[in-house]
Amino acid sequence: MTAPSFARVLIVGAGLMGTSTGLALRRAGVEVLLSDTSPGHLRLAVSLGAGMPIEPGVEPGAAGVEPDLVIVGVPPAALGSVVAEQLARHPNATVTDLGSVKAQALAAIAERTPDGIERYVGSHPMAGSERSGPLAAQEHLFDGRAWAVTPHPTSAPASVAVVESLASTCGAFPVRMTPAEHDEAVALVSHVPQIAASVVAGLLTTAAEEHLLLAGQGLRDVTRIAAGDATLWTQILSANARPVARLLHEAADDLQRLAVTLDKAGAELPDDTGVHGLLERGAAGVRRLPGKHGARAEPFTHVPVLLPDRPGELARLFADVGGAGVNIEDVRIDHSPGTPAGLVELAVRADAVSDLLAALEQHGWSVHG
Amino acid sequence: MTAPSFARVLIVGAGLMGTSTGLALRRAGVEVLLSDTSPGHLRLAVSLGAGMPIEPGVEPGAAGVEPDLVIVGVPPAALGSVVAEQLARHPNATVTDLGSVKAQALAAIAERTPDGIERYVGSHPMAGSERSGPLAAQEHLFDGRAWAVTPHPTSAPASVAVVESLASTCGAFPVRMTPAEHDEAVALVSHVPQIAASVVAGLLTTAAEEHLLLAGQGLRDVTRIAAGDATLWTQILSANARPVARLLHEAADDLQRLAVTLDKAGAELPDDTGVHGLLERGAAGVRRLPGKHGARAEPFTHVPVLLPDRPGELARLFADVGGAGVNIEDVRIDHSPGTPAGLVELAVRADAVSDLLAALEQHGWSVHG
Repeated sequence: MTAPSFARVLIVGAGLMGTSTGLALRRAGVEVLLSDTSPGHLRLAVSLGAGMPIEPGVEPGAAGVEPDLVIVGVPPAALGSVVAEQLARHPNATVTDLGSVKAQALAAIAERTPDGIERYVGSHPMAGSERSGPLAAQEHLFDGRAWAVTPHPTSAPASVAVVESLASTCGAFPVRMTPAEHDEAVALVSHVPQIAASVVAGLLTTAAEEHLLLAGQGLRDVTRIAAGDATLWTQILSANARPVARLLHEAADDLQRLAVTLDKAGAELPDDTGVHGLLERGAAGVRRLPGKHGARAEPFTHVPVLLPDRPGELARLFADVGGAGVNIEDVRIDHSPGTPAGLVELAVRADAVSDLLAALEQHGWSVHG
Repeated sequence: MTAPSFARVLIVGAGLMGTSTGLALRRAGVEVLLSDTSPGHLRLAVSLGAGMPIEPGVEPGAAGVEPDLVIVGVPPAALGSVVAEQLARHPNATVTDLGSVKAQALAAIAERTPDGIERYVGSHPMAGSERSGPLAAQEHLFDGRAWAVTPHPTSAPASVAVVESLASTCGAFPVRMTPAEHDEAVALVSHVPQIAASVVAGLLTTAAEEHLLLAGQGLRDVTRIAAGDATLWTQILSANARPVARLLHEAADDLQRLAVTLDKAGAELPDDTGVHGLLERGAAGVRRLPGKHGARAEPFTHVPVLLPDRPGELARLFADVGGAGVNIEDVRIDHSPGTPAGLVELAVRADAVSDLLAALEQHGWSVHG
């Protein structure tokens, strides 16, 4: 991580996102000032170690502590006026926000035609929690996550660099895109999944208690984010109405078509009714999701091992390899003609191959070929 | 855990569920025989330690190893004939299956009017994986999970007891219900969530690569199960078509209504458009999900602590308590009039209260009242 390109930061709004940003910046040794219209939130954020308090109405500049970066973490409805106000108050600072929707925020700011709008660069860290408020804040919330940085056509390059540096300093990786691109992207990766989770969870409200006993991890994972703040999410969805609505129509059509197919279903659905296709398409979508840091899954090295034909041998192999501290990423059995029976391929990261080979030799396993 | 009410088990079908059941039974010291029409699957399951192999076509009885419980873990389409066949082959054994849909399986079995249908009791462990096959099997797959046990009106009480004992022996807790009740329940807690995950994941297939960089944990959680086997899921959905279709219509209507509302939305949605209600309903549904073992969340003890008004004090409190090995389950700040400022309530499990009080005293924190 390079040194941050700012020395003093003011965070306006000490909720989940603002307080987490403060904690992440403090971790990196940055000086952080905090303000919030709620004295309770401000007190909590300060008490958690997210920065030093600025009382409402007090000018940081008056105390000789002028920030060079202002981060606005307030609800969508208040964003436009708070950003415009901060641009005016701190004429040398870059101002960014942490809001979930960027085009409407930019419009709300531009509408006020503030001096210095070239110092505004929107941003959006792609991390959060179904909980809200400063008590849910975490200093590692952004580690390894994407942080969208969304300049407008007149944003100053220096301000863009400051906001990208903010993302890196907080442990995230910056992804630059236009506000409109961002809003299309989050409709897909965040807003529609949120609605789907809420709809599935909503069906549970009228279920028999005993039926819910059968709930497993799948349902819990699908519905976890539905526990989020309904008022905040109503604001987010309204601010990104058009991109969300377009995808929702598509999703509703998929569900409706499937429901009609199932209505007509006899004992067995042929694979060509579209049910199989819908499920296949879902599996293909999951495979497109990038790994951490936006990286594609790295290719593994496959080590072929011959397995004696005795009960429990594969279990013994896994135990021997695991005992040596080597992580097996995948296992493949080759059934092609001509391949010896009992040949398994252990997939490991390239940097674990030598440890794997040593462990196999130590325990008497035969590496093939 | 009481001793299992069976001594020798035959598992027919060494896929994910059958092999995991074998591993869990072996862990409990039960003798397990395995068979599978695929020699490769059989060999793998045996190699993992899930039991001893019975070659296809060989009668276990011929080798003097007659099972007293047969577990059928085969795809839905094959279930009826395999269960009927096992009832005939093993005239003293209880026969169960691990299928995801129970009413249609029972109908397929009853249709063959096998002798001994009173020895058949359906069951369904509520655990799985988006992966399939014996290599994905885990001996602890069922630990702490529900295991539905679904007798029919003529099931013998002794056979019901054997299958409930199977669930407990594998680490799960049995939940008894009728096949029809079960199917309604899994449509809600498993099949519709599966479809919702597939639909959301399916939208990703046409997205720009860069948009997917913004994917966070929420999207990953919502879509994880969509990676499951499309062919198996097509069979499951077709076998439970009516209960699933009813809920799908409801979910599709919810999405459609929301899409239409967003189409019309101006700058801000009033809370009464139904958006807020849909999101609130989702949050209420999540709150209804029971904890592990089907237990309601246990009530915590709240310990009030006075917090000095200095930066970082709450962080120091958490560090002191965490350092003493006490797990804080929740934190509450009381803002009621008359409450001293800086009063936080730490929620801990009842059995951790004395450790918490000792840690607070040691580090000089004032417990209030």
